[in-house]
Amino acid sequence: MEMLSKVGSYAFLAEPFHCDFSHRLFLGHLGNHMLNAADFHSNDRGYGMSYLNPLHRTWVLSRLAIEMNEMPQAYERFTIDTWVDSVMRFFTSRNFRVSVGGTVCGYGKSIWAMIDTDSRQPVDILAVRDGLIKQYIETETACPIDKSSRVKMGEAARQIGSIATNYSDVDINGHVNSVKYIEHVLDLWPLDWYRRHRVKRFEIAYVAESHCGDILNFYREEIAENEYGIKITKSNGNTLEEIEVVRCKVDFEEY
Amino acid sequence: MEMLSKVGSYAFLAEPFHCDFSHRLFLGHLGNHMLNAADFHSNDRGYGMSYLNPLHRTWVLSRLAIEMNEMPQAYERFTIDTWVDSVMRFFTSRNFRVSVGGTVCGYGKSIWAMIDTDSRQPVDILAVRDGLIKQYIETETACPIDKSSRVKMGEAARQIGSIATNYSDVDINGHVNSVKYIEHVLDLWPLDWYRRHRVKRFEIAYVAESHCGDILNFYREEIAENEYGIKITKSNGNTLEEIEVVRCKVDFEEY
Repeated sequence: MEMLSKVGSYAFLAEPFHCDFSHRLFLGHLGNHMLNAADFHSNDRGYGMSYLNPLHRTWVLSRLAIEMNEMPQAYERFTIDTWVDSVMRFFTSRNFRVSVGGTVCGYGKSIWAMIDTDSRQPVDILAVRDGLIKQYIETETACPIDKSSRVKMGEAARQIGSIATNYSDVDINGHVNSVKYIEHVLDLWPLDWYRRHRVKRFEIAYVAESHCGDILNFYREEIAENEYGIKITKSNGNTLEEIEVVRCKVDFEEY
Repeated sequence: MEMLSKVGSYAFLAEPFHCDFSHRLFLGHLGNHMLNAADFHSNDRGYGMSYLNPLHRTWVLSRLAIEMNEMPQAYERFTIDTWVDSVMRFFTSRNFRVSVGGTVCGYGKSIWAMIDTDSRQPVDILAVRDGLIKQYIETETACPIDKSSRVKMGEAARQIGSIATNYSDVDINGHVNSVKYIEHVLDLWPLDWYRRHRVKRFEIAYVAESHCGDILNFYREEIAENEYGIKITKSNGNTLEEIEVVRCKVDFEEY
């Protein structure tokens, strides 16, 4: 396979129907485009899903943090640059840089694991193609945002909603889509909130998988002014037990 | 403005996270791409949103019918051809043809009105740029599917669900997004149903607008085997009255 550049660049359009009432791209759709960029970048370099899936291996997104100074607006073309900046046996770290017309408007950081699709257990990333991914580690390009932190939530977290998961929530892996959680979390605030606040930073940690038919329960706690911790648990009709599936932190900034 | 071809062709990718558990593109995302194609086509030809919006005019989708023999699969590139096949003072009819690698896999038919964005009243389409749109009427290209019909629903329609609308449902026009209704309607069937059935034809008529905070109520009636009529009404906390916003017909086919 030809040796490509370590950083991959992918062009996207802020489609009008992917933008919110303020004509800015929905954060969930930006997240989706980051996942697309990661997918294209890893496939092009020989360690993506198209190589892994026949071997019963897949990438699993473990954490994602997005920090934006500005969101692309409706009809704007934007670029997502992505690169892997470190790899260990069970985790790899991938960065994103979002720009519009050459001006950087934000960054993303993500952590991925590789699992065996039969056993759902983590597998050694470096065992794939003799550690081919190591040839593409890029450490020169800056991604000047904080790593994901462990979001602590205390007793103050209140359950503020529950939703049923349906056909449209589930992706090709049979699980609730990573991006749908982002949408569901941002829906915890009313439209009016978004007239005065923008999401400055969004952090999400995927703790466990949920499936179609699971009920998702949302717990929210105000950590500081305009900073919220969110925990999502799953439950179903068979048991009263709730299992944590997602933990988030959302930092807003007032307009 | 340069005279472009009457039929516009736009290339899309069936993005992996826009595909369902069976690896086929979600119908809502296909509908979104049709709306994108319509938007690009009309903008390129001088009678699109980018020309209309500064004049306080906009296109409003009134009806959409989609009939598919097969859905694009994950990672497939597909083309949407679109053209306007008739125009009258208050309505215009636009067709779509979806193909993968030169093979047609389905069609769409849509009806659009133009409104004044201040008064929300219909305006004369032919008054825009001296009826420029008439220069682009294409009647030679076939779109061999039935027009949208008036979906009759009787007393047998049962309310089978209600949902709250949120920040993520609302698009740049401030209304619940046309495509979100498609998702919500298809979510009325459980995932297991889609293991044995595919959507052969989907018809939707937009009767009134709904806004963030409205409750959407779903009524369903089985019209014939694997054929369903759906009515969506809106309600809110201020009144007991329900107002119809959408009417649909879904024809399934067993695998």
